[in-house]
Amino acid sequence: MGSKYPKSFRISLPLWAVILEIVFILVFFFFTTYEIPSKKSDLLKTYPAFQDINVMLVLGLAFLKASLWRYTWSSVAFNLFTLALGVQWAVILDGFLFYLSRWRFAINIHRIIKGTMSTMTVLISSGATLGKINLVQLIVMTLLEVTAFQGTKKLMQELLKVDEHQSLMQIHIFGAYFGVAAAWYLSESESNTAKEKEKRAVASNLFTALGTLFLWIFWPTFNSALLHNPGEKETAVYNTYYALAVSAVTAMSFSAATHSNGKISMTHVHRATLAGGVVVGVSTILIKSPWIAMALGFSAGTIAVIGDKYLPGCFNQVIRLHDTCGVHSTFGLPALLGGLIYILLVARPTGWTNLSLIGNKILISAGSLSLPMAMGLVGGVLTGLILSFNIWKAPHEAKYFDDQAFWEFPHLAVGF
Amino acid sequence: MGSKYPKSFRISLPLWAVILEIVFILVFFFFTTYEIPSKKSDLLKTYPAFQDINVMLVLGLAFLKASLWRYTWSSVAFNLFTLALGVQWAVILDGFLFYLSRWRFAINIHRIIKGTMSTMTVLISSGATLGKINLVQLIVMTLLEVTAFQGTKKLMQELLKVDEHQSLMQIHIFGAYFGVAAAWYLSESESNTAKEKEKRAVASNLFTALGTLFLWIFWPTFNSALLHNPGEKETAVYNTYYALAVSAVTAMSFSAATHSNGKISMTHVHRATLAGGVVVGVSTILIKSPWIAMALGFSAGTIAVIGDKYLPGCFNQVIRLHDTCGVHSTFGLPALLGGLIYILLVARPTGWTNLSLIGNKILISAGSLSLPMAMGLVGGVLTGLILSFNIWKAPHEAKYFDDQAFWEFPHLAVGF
Amino acid sequence: MGSKYPKSFRISLPLWAVILEIVFILVFFFFTTYEIPSKKSDLLKTYPAFQDINVMLVLGLAFLKASLWRYTWSSVAFNLFTLALGVQWAVILDGFLFYLSRWRFAINIHRIIKGTMSTMTVLISSGATLGKINLVQLIVMTLLEVTAFQGTKKLMQELLKVDEHQSLMQIHIFGAYFGVAAAWYLSESESNTAKEKEKRAVASNLFTALGTLFLWIFWPTFNSALLHNPGEKETAVYNTYYALAVSAVTAMSFSAATHSNGKISMTHVHRATLAGGVVVGVSTILIKSPWIAMALGFSAGTIAVIGDKYLPGCFNQVIRLHDTCGVHSTFGLPALLGGLIYILLVARPTGWTNLSLIGNKILISAGSLSLPMAMGLVGGVLTGLILSFNIWKAPHEAKYFDDQAFWEFPHLAVGF
Repeated sequence: MGSKYPKSFRISLPLWAVILEIVFILVFFFFTTYEIPSKKSDLLKTYPAFQDINVMLVLGLAFLKASLWRYTWSSVAFNLFTLALGVQWAVILDGFLFYLSRWRFAINIHRIIKGTMSTMTVLISSGATLGKINLVQLIVMTLLEVTAFQGTKKLMQELLKVDEHQSLMQIHIFGAYFGVAAAWYLSESESNTAKEKEKRAVASNLFTALGTLFLWIFWPTFNSALLHNPGEKETAVYNTYYALAVSAVTAMSFSAATHSNGKISMTHVHRATLAGGVVVGVSTILIKSPWIAMALGFSAGTIAVIGDKYLPGCFNQVIRLHDTCGVHSTFGLPALLGGLIYILLVARPTGWTNLSLIGNKILISAGSLSLPMAMGLVGGVLTGLILSFNIWKAPHEAKYFDDQAFWEFPHLAVGF
Repeated sequence: MGSKYPKSFRISLPLWAVILEIVFILVFFFFTTYEIPSKKSDLLKTYPAFQDINVMLVLGLAFLKASLWRYTWSSVAFNLFTLALGVQWAVILDGFLFYLSRWRFAINIHRIIKGTMSTMTVLISSGATLGKINLVQLIVMTLLEVTAFQGTKKLMQELLKVDEHQSLMQIHIFGAYFGVAAAWYLSESESNTAKEKEKRAVASNLFTALGTLFLWIFWPTFNSALLHNPGEKETAVYNTYYALAVSAVTAMSFSAATHSNGKISMTHVHRATLAGGVVVGVSTILIKSPWIAMALGFSAGTIAVIGDKYLPGCFNQVIRLHDTCGVHSTFGLPALLGGLIYILLVARPTGWTNLSLIGNKILISAGSLSLPMAMGLVGGVLTGLILSFNIWKAPHEAKYFDDQAFWEFPHLAVGF
Repeated sequence: MGSKYPKSFRISLPLWAVILEIVFILVFFFFTTYEIPSKKSDLLKTYPAFQDINVMLVLGLAFLKASLWRYTWSSVAFNLFTLALGVQWAVILDGFLFYLSRWRFAINIHRIIKGTMSTMTVLISSGATLGKINLVQLIVMTLLEVTAFQGTKKLMQELLKVDEHQSLMQIHIFGAYFGVAAAWYLSESESNTAKEKEKRAVASNLFTALGTLFLWIFWPTFNSALLHNPGEKETAVYNTYYALAVSAVTAMSFSAATHSNGKISMTHVHRATLAGGVVVGVSTILIKSPWIAMALGFSAGTIAVIGDKYLPGCFNQVIRLHDTCGVHSTFGLPALLGGLIYILLVARPTGWTNLSLIGNKILISAGSLSLPMAMGLVGGVLTGLILSFNIWKAPHEAKYFDDQAFWEFPHLAVGF
């Protein structure tokens, strides 16, 4: 087994999907209800944000991962599959962990948004494992990662008293390190035969740019969606917008600086322009002036480019790690920077008058940075271990990054 | 005439367009007015839904039909042409049939939305006739089909007392069967020379995926746009979302089950993932729990895949029918299932206590399912008949599915 | 220097970006503040319009310019760069010119929208200079053009008492003539070697169609965003929608009429379908019936097609002018027509009773049309002159329209 691509995928995938969907439908039957007693629903107020976030995750992240020329179909379609499955599971877990009362929890738009955001961890991580796992493994990874993240969120809220918005903003760091850890475990067997298939093509890079632009446009919605105070919401929009604007300028400029002939890398455009949105996510409510957001965007754009340029080489030498879509530099590094800035900003306002209180605050914010990172790393390694079992029948490494392993190519025309 | 592609297209197309636009402008001059006496307009409340629906129809349906590698330009551009023309005609008919008072009717955003939705019937049908008719024929089809649908809607509202939302949700079934019937009439002359041009290419399939994703994201808006009760609107959003989520998972999984090597068909991803949105359209106001929507999404995803896989073969053997974009399995079958479920749900709540009332209700809902279907089939055959007249000068069948019959390819580069 | 592509781009681009960003951050540090004293912010009301406009400018205009098959990456990425940089500078200038009080001005969403719209002048102009200038020159052009436009706006508001909405709607005419003038100055050195690279490809034209469709969909938001009166806002939406619908039909039909075999040009679809949105921009508040908007859309679609077909030839013979993306026929001509219509509509309502008042009004509206046009032309020529200095190290003309001059093409696969 294992060395040839197995035909039993025909049975295993539908079997998994049917079992899971039946379980989900039963859980929804027994434990959920629609919450519509209110005359005046606030759906209209929240619905546009919900759709912006959907555009980001369903379209933006799908095409962001579509730059490998032999793997575009899988990138786009598996992303939708992951989200559609993950959000059902995330809403169930969320309901049981946080909202269960009298053995029922209500479905409403806020919980679907939170479920969508929690599933984003998997969409991020799958950028690192892209091309190395099949759809059945992706189902397993989705279930495990959403569970791990919901557990982490529960821990953060119970132990560290971190609020909803703050704990959900940790999805970047959790998703990035989970993905990197899982990819590290799965990279062991990788050979050089995949190099050819990892090429990028002109058109597939344009699709990726499309994904990037959608993410760039709607990121302010993402960072402000869970804030209730109108003032905080507004500041979050402005902070994110300015951080993104500066990081877009910085990323393209520094990309030229890292190339011996001063040429810009399209990969940096795809990834580092978004660093500004990630870096202010956690600390936006503490940023009271646009210049701070701009300075953060500047730093984030810079480290994302530098990280993307030099870190993969280091990682490959020290540990065998192959991060297909560079989620570490796109999401990991900027989120790490954002977390450190948050600690700084927490410590600042009260000055040094009340040392014990500040110490306490710093400890908590350090905890809310390191907890998701640690959980991500541990969860990722464990998931990588589980995914490497023979039972999941991964494609042979010769089939890495290859749409043809998964897709029917019926009457395919060459060229465009 | 007829066998060679005629040069007179240069005159006939602008002539038709100029005559029609002058007529439309005159009708708008004599019979319409803007309704803006209200200080506090509710434009802001409805405008986002209007734009979501525009994204679905102008972008989503355009790219959904763009998978034929030799016919992408026509698919995308003719879709815009059809919508822009059809919505003007639909608003006029709507005004005369439903809102005329003192020989004037007001233009407002609700009527533009309804006009847009009515024109969607043509956008759906043109998926079945895609590649077989020219732009002049498309003008004729647009005028005939919009008229037929507005007549059907009037009949449903007058005879069966069906409300606005319910009657507009029948666009899927009307559009699908209208298109299939017209395509059946036009398929007669089809030969095998078109096979080569019907190939799908990697990049064009990505564009189609883009269209699918837009439709997937905004379908909840579509199903809820015409509901006024906030609670019903909210439920419609949740029902549609859950049905879509489950049908996306189901469609991809069952697609693997129908292939001998367990490979997924991208065509199923394009079509069957949307079945969940279609199936709950008509019955959403009767669905009070998410699990029902999920079960419906499951069934719809399954039958859309199976229909897409096995029905074309049957149809081709029994009757010569070529449904280019598979609108029958994408829109027809799920809408049929949704209509049957609606009858079931109508019968359920009151139990068997008041048999005559229930019988009446069932008859009405059966009528509101079969009326648009019958009108669609009859209208489609008649339209196919009219379109097959020599006067419209269809492209010779050797030019089927070929952008070059319609488009100037000036300094075209090969490859991308 | 100058004849070979210089390596120093590696230093000059990051240097410029770093200096500018540091200056911007310092200005924001000293002179700006967030305006969030209000409990009930109106962010929610304005945010969707802000995002629609962002989709138009970041995505729509980016892909609208992506039809040159060798220059797609630069078109899309440089557009984002220009916008991200320009909006920072535009908000600063706007603050200093219009809102400074006690050496501080507040950042709010309305000012960011206005900054975005002002930067649109550069995005339009860069369509004419596309492929002829490098990223450093684009930085210079962005700074100069935004400054020139903000100056023009100040002049219009001070001298002619034109309001915010009217003055910002002049961006089309300003941007188009600025771009044409700059392109005229830069076209001098152009040779025939670039012809091959100016080819358009099937797939890149589809990306351009994507950009067009986004612009088509959201143009009603653009034309109504700065109006405060709900009635005016509503009329602006309807007028724009109907003008766009008619111009889409007209553009495609007349495109066939201008081709000897009756074939449609995709370039006309990209450009002339949008003419309806441009033509009603300035005069929408004076249009009280849909038929006027439709008639304007009809005229605009027609002249955009005719202008695109026949003017480039004339221009090339009389003056050496190469307008890469046809911004003159897309934005210039329809805006000119719209300005003339505005003068007519201003003169109409009062009849001929009060001649001196009408004369005054006509003079003012003629001034508010010719001022931005004149400023655009003069500013464009001066900017072209400045951009042609050797110091900016333009790519050699052999590198015109060539992504490879700017981009790292690392492991690029052929074909898709």
